[in-house]
Amino acid sequence: MIREPQQERSRTTRRRLIEAAVECIGELGWTGTTVAVIAERAGVSRGAAQHHFPTREDLLVAAVELVGEVQLSELRSQVADLPEGPSRIETVASVLLNLYAGPMFRAALHLWVAGSTDQALRDTLVPLEARVGREAHRVAVDLLGVDESHDGVREMVQATLDLARGLGLANLLTDDTKRRQQIVRQWARMLEQNVAGTTSV
Amino acid sequence: MIREPQQERSRTTRRRLIEAAVECIGELGWTGTTVAVIAERAGVSRGAAQHHFPTREDLLVAAVELVGEVQLSELRSQVADLPEGPSRIETVASVLLNLYAGPMFRAALHLWVAGSTDQALRDTLVPLEARVGREAHRVAVDLLGVDESHDGVREMVQATLDLARGLGLANLLTDDTKRRQQIVRQWARMLEQNVAGTTSV
Repeated sequence: MIREPQQERSRTTRRRLIEAAVECIGELGWTGTTVAVIAERAGVSRGAAQHHFPTREDLLVAAVELVGEVQLSELRSQVADLPEGPSRIETVASVLLNLYAGPMFRAALHLWVAGSTDQALRDTLVPLEARVGREAHRVAVDLLGVDESHDGVREMVQATLDLARGLGLANLLTDDTKRRQQIVRQWARMLEQNVAGTTSV
Repeated sequence: MIREPQQERSRTTRRRLIEAAVECIGELGWTGTTVAVIAERAGVSRGAAQHHFPTREDLLVAAVELVGEVQLSELRSQVADLPEGPSRIETVASVLLNLYAGPMFRAALHLWVAGSTDQALRDTLVPLEARVGREAHRVAVDLLGVDESHDGVREMVQATLDLARGLGLANLLTDDTKRRQQIVRQWARMLEQNVAGTTSV
């Protein structure tokens, strides 16, 4: 067996800890999630976990950042090589409005709800979410190919992402896929008629 | 001092218990909320609380229903006596998109997040939320004065309420009022141009 190089092993451990953190937060909430619980889930010793992430807040920051990056890179790859035109808008609307329909959104919700009554958690989350949110906005503008210098376009892109989070909520307790698909179709038509004319590409 | 009639006293106790339940869930989450904790907060004996609500699930159902009713009646009163025309649409869009920006939404979020991993809670919540959601939809259609038999109108009304929940989330950790107001303005313009033409009044 070829030994995994030290640096790579370290990266794998880090990644496993982050993924375990997302799972634990989604299932147990923030209160129930400790570094010890995460380490056990990841199959990593507590010492090794603390070497990578001294506090659970450090793990939280890494988790939110990773989830944000993974989501946006998935989003970019889903719409890569799509031709321009109405069918492109529909695909872009679909991937944007499905952005929060998965299990990772549950972990985010747990954190936001806990942060609403926990000042320290809130102080960690707010700048982090602002950064992830700005990046999502930038990607959405880019994929929609719209020009934000036109009146109202910025707000319609924001509304698209806020709607996506609302649809994520609606998908939390029941499978809302069918209803969401109909909203996606109508939303794509609305974007086509209201903001696609501002396209800068 | 005039004695409060028995029936009215009973109604007051009931109402105080329900309001205390909403507060407790918002602050402590569903796990931390017991009938005993709610009774203490309401200043009601545990026995009296259990007389009105044998289980915390009964209290939960009453709380979700009351919050839904209060929100919708506030909504109706805010737009009563408004003349038709663009300024009406802007006011309606504003009250709809502010529907979940208050503290009661935090209690709802706690319940939804807890329900996503607690099957019994989920079974209680799902039909309840479906009923409250249908009623909100009906009121929104009514206030917007739109005709749902027109293609896409139903989805735009749904999108309005899903957007409102997404905006509620965005208001959880920071005061998002200013950004929300700009989205409201743009949303009103969009509704005016895209669905107001279907008005049935």
